[in-house]
Amino acid sequence: MNISDRFQTSLALLTDLYQLTMAQGYWKKGMAEQEAVFHLYFRKNPFKGGYTVMAGLADAIDLLQHLQFTPEDTAYLGSLRGSKNQPLFEQGFLDYLLQMRFTCDVAAVPEGTVVFPNEPLLRISGPILQCQLVETPLLTIINFQTLVATKAARIVEAAQGDRVIEFGMRRAQGPDGALSATRAAFIGGIGATSNLLAGRLFTIPVKGTHAHSWVMSFTEEQAAFTAYAEVFPDDSVFLVDTYNTLAGIKKAVTVAKDLRARGHELQGVRLDSGDLAYLSKEGRRLFDEAGFPAVSIVASNDLDEYLIESLKRQGARIDTWGIGTKLVTAYDQPALGGVYKLGALRHPVTGEWEYKLKLSEQLAKISTPGIQQVRRFFNEQGFLADMIYSEETAPTSTLIDPNDATRRKTMASSIQCQDLLVPIFRQGQLIYQTPDLRTIQQHAQQQVQQLHETIRRFLNPHVYPVGLEENLYNQKIDIILKLRQAEKA
Amino acid sequence: MNISDRFQTSLALLTDLYQLTMAQGYWKKGMAEQEAVFHLYFRKNPFKGGYTVMAGLADAIDLLQHLQFTPEDTAYLGSLRGSKNQPLFEQGFLDYLLQMRFTCDVAAVPEGTVVFPNEPLLRISGPILQCQLVETPLLTIINFQTLVATKAARIVEAAQGDRVIEFGMRRAQGPDGALSATRAAFIGGIGATSNLLAGRLFTIPVKGTHAHSWVMSFTEEQAAFTAYAEVFPDDSVFLVDTYNTLAGIKKAVTVAKDLRARGHELQGVRLDSGDLAYLSKEGRRLFDEAGFPAVSIVASNDLDEYLIESLKRQGARIDTWGIGTKLVTAYDQPALGGVYKLGALRHPVTGEWEYKLKLSEQLAKISTPGIQQVRRFFNEQGFLADMIYSEETAPTSTLIDPNDATRRKTMASSIQCQDLLVPIFRQGQLIYQTPDLRTIQQHAQQQVQQLHETIRRFLNPHVYPVGLEENLYNQKIDIILKLRQAEKA
Repeated sequence: MNISDRFQTSLALLTDLYQLTMAQGYWKKGMAEQEAVFHLYFRKNPFKGGYTVMAGLADAIDLLQHLQFTPEDTAYLGSLRGSKNQPLFEQGFLDYLLQMRFTCDVAAVPEGTVVFPNEPLLRISGPILQCQLVETPLLTIINFQTLVATKAARIVEAAQGDRVIEFGMRRAQGPDGALSATRAAFIGGIGATSNLLAGRLFTIPVKGTHAHSWVMSFTEEQAAFTAYAEVFPDDSVFLVDTYNTLAGIKKAVTVAKDLRARGHELQGVRLDSGDLAYLSKEGRRLFDEAGFPAVSIVASNDLDEYLIESLKRQGARIDTWGIGTKLVTAYDQPALGGVYKLGALRHPVTGEWEYKLKLSEQLAKISTPGIQQVRRFFNEQGFLADMIYSEETAPTSTLIDPNDATRRKTMASSIQCQDLLVPIFRQGQLIYQTPDLRTIQQHAQQQVQQLHETIRRFLNPHVYPVGLEENLYNQKIDIILKLRQAEKA
Repeated sequence: MNISDRFQTSLALLTDLYQLTMAQGYWKKGMAEQEAVFHLYFRKNPFKGGYTVMAGLADAIDLLQHLQFTPEDTAYLGSLRGSKNQPLFEQGFLDYLLQMRFTCDVAAVPEGTVVFPNEPLLRISGPILQCQLVETPLLTIINFQTLVATKAARIVEAAQGDRVIEFGMRRAQGPDGALSATRAAFIGGIGATSNLLAGRLFTIPVKGTHAHSWVMSFTEEQAAFTAYAEVFPDDSVFLVDTYNTLAGIKKAVTVAKDLRARGHELQGVRLDSGDLAYLSKEGRRLFDEAGFPAVSIVASNDLDEYLIESLKRQGARIDTWGIGTKLVTAYDQPALGGVYKLGALRHPVTGEWEYKLKLSEQLAKISTPGIQQVRRFFNEQGFLADMIYSEETAPTSTLIDPNDATRRKTMASSIQCQDLLVPIFRQGQLIYQTPDLRTIQQHAQQQVQQLHETIRRFLNPHVYPVGLEENLYNQKIDIILKLRQAEKA
């Protein structure tokens, strides 16, 4: 169930106005079909982390596959007015849009793959007008899902094999924010969600307990537990903090005994407030002493990877982590900041690729030119380094840190490697089959395991080596120097 | 264009699994139709601010109006399995869901109204099963739109009458995150958006400039400006920082002269990097000296209310503020944290309302019981105080700070007042007409103006007085004491 199935409306207008004004500009100047290459990438791992998990490609593919303007779309564009109240768009251009079909080549990094700053996650080549139109939605989709998949992978890492459940719908950024977040969190490794619609649309396992209001709708907490256990004798997890948590746990123990007498087992209790380290240890002790070592203790309440680490250090006895707000909104960094930059333009007369980059005062913000691919080097211990090269020229074996040219690495030809970008569309035809979500999740887990633990840690992680291939590095420097020279002249 | 029109799928499952398991519990226990009252409220103003702007009601109404389970929804629920692989839901319950129609009463605060912590934004009363099912989506919708409307109001306040444009789609939390954010930002006071689909669906003005890639697709920056000006002679805003900002401004001045010679005027330039204070002053000087005082200077680059304030203090000459990431994700606090609590339950035998609350170790987290309404007192200078009272009893004129009972206020009977919650649904029938979005925006602006400037400031704002009506306060204290006593016994 991808984006075009979720939304009723045509999504051709799911973009910024300036993509359309530029499109009319290219069309008027006879440049609409000029072949361009754009790359989508980000400049920093989110959460001050050492890695990022790619997600969102399935929705991105779906959006590109259905890119088509409807008469309603162009009627709306035709209604827009400029500063002199004249139509902003010409009828000829709107007719062009109506008959336009997506004809680009797209290559992308499969979902669940770990990626790093400055690496193209997606490369699109084709008529510049088309490449430009889809910039905004591609960024919206890939930025957000990649952000949440990465957050989830970190939380799952902190949980060290415990079950992690996503509970965040009520705090998500709108209904589709919740759906996309749940999908991405599943890619990042969560085991289940409370979000039923995500469960149905994406075939993700669903889990839940009950709310405080269930307890409050009975005169006595114990009566509430007993009633719930009668309805779900094999699937009860009691929320024990409506009034007093330890008293609630003791009542849950009593009901667990009643259940066992009838041939059933209480599944667990949930702690949603208070000192989770202390309460989980006390809860564990009370259940163990009563002969219920299998009753699991679920914890929730604004948890994230840092709190999970801290609770584990304190010896908390928590088996299942319910994660909401901090995961679905990526609370400590709610946007990835991915960008989409022109890398090359085919000269209309010579037919040669001309490499392009955007200057900046800050070296780290200067884009990389070319028709980029990423080559990952690895051995049986895991990933070693990534090299960004341009597919136009056979890559050398030397990679150079673009922000510090004195840092270089030469990869022996015996080292195994793999190119990360795989073909997705060829001339507008989809040639890629998205794996099912569980396969993507397994891929993500295997990928993260290939990273050295110093890269996976949360505090000041090691920087995974990503370099520009030597030729591409030299081409980039040449272009920067020429552009700076031109500015001085 | 509300949520049920935007989404293709039935939204009955847009909720947490536990709402459905509790629903089956209520149904099995014969409590499904027991009358309950729930309130949706938040505990703290976002962004450490002094006020909050209500938004999201239109989508919330739409969701409630279309609440109906489809056979696909119940078939999915029927497929869910418990711990012993038995069906989690009974067929009788699923049949009940299929025939269920929304029959609740709903009262809510109109969009654009300023609201404060602990005040009910929405009150729903009716069969407890129905009230419970809609908890999650109501929170998702109102939490997020209220958050963004509030952020927008703060940004508009900082801009002191300058035009504010929302540019954030590429950094939003998914496509509908972008749409909802744009709608809410418009309620909060932005003048226009770059989001074309939001423009079409919500009739919001759209604005835009061009991207760096436009400049990069020409061999020369000046040629790029000239070409754009040829296509949009009356609507050009040049992005001047692709290579060197001051050089870019000088080229824009040249093209502005060419345009004027042909009877047109350059609209503006956009600065997207660098020292915006310095560059805007230099830009203003260059345009003024060349005889273009009307060319506007647009600034963007991770702006928010704090940066706008700082730039204004530095004398920046910026006329239009383009705001993206920080607005659409509410970056410094990406979730509102609204909650939804049971306030009263009608006794099945006596027919009397029984007041309910949720205890907590922290006084501030104890919910308020009753069937709540908010009365706002005001005079010609603006808003004075709000009183939360229960509609069951005629309110006294004394309000008590629930977190510090020594703080009391008595409102003279001569003071004007108005109740904030207005009827929305009566027994499931919609009896409210949502105003058009521009009317809501004007209402929000008038509302914010009624707040004293000490409440509107960003740093340590004054706390607007919100109290519990004396009777309600006493009832709340009685219930807390009884519950604490019961825990001890």
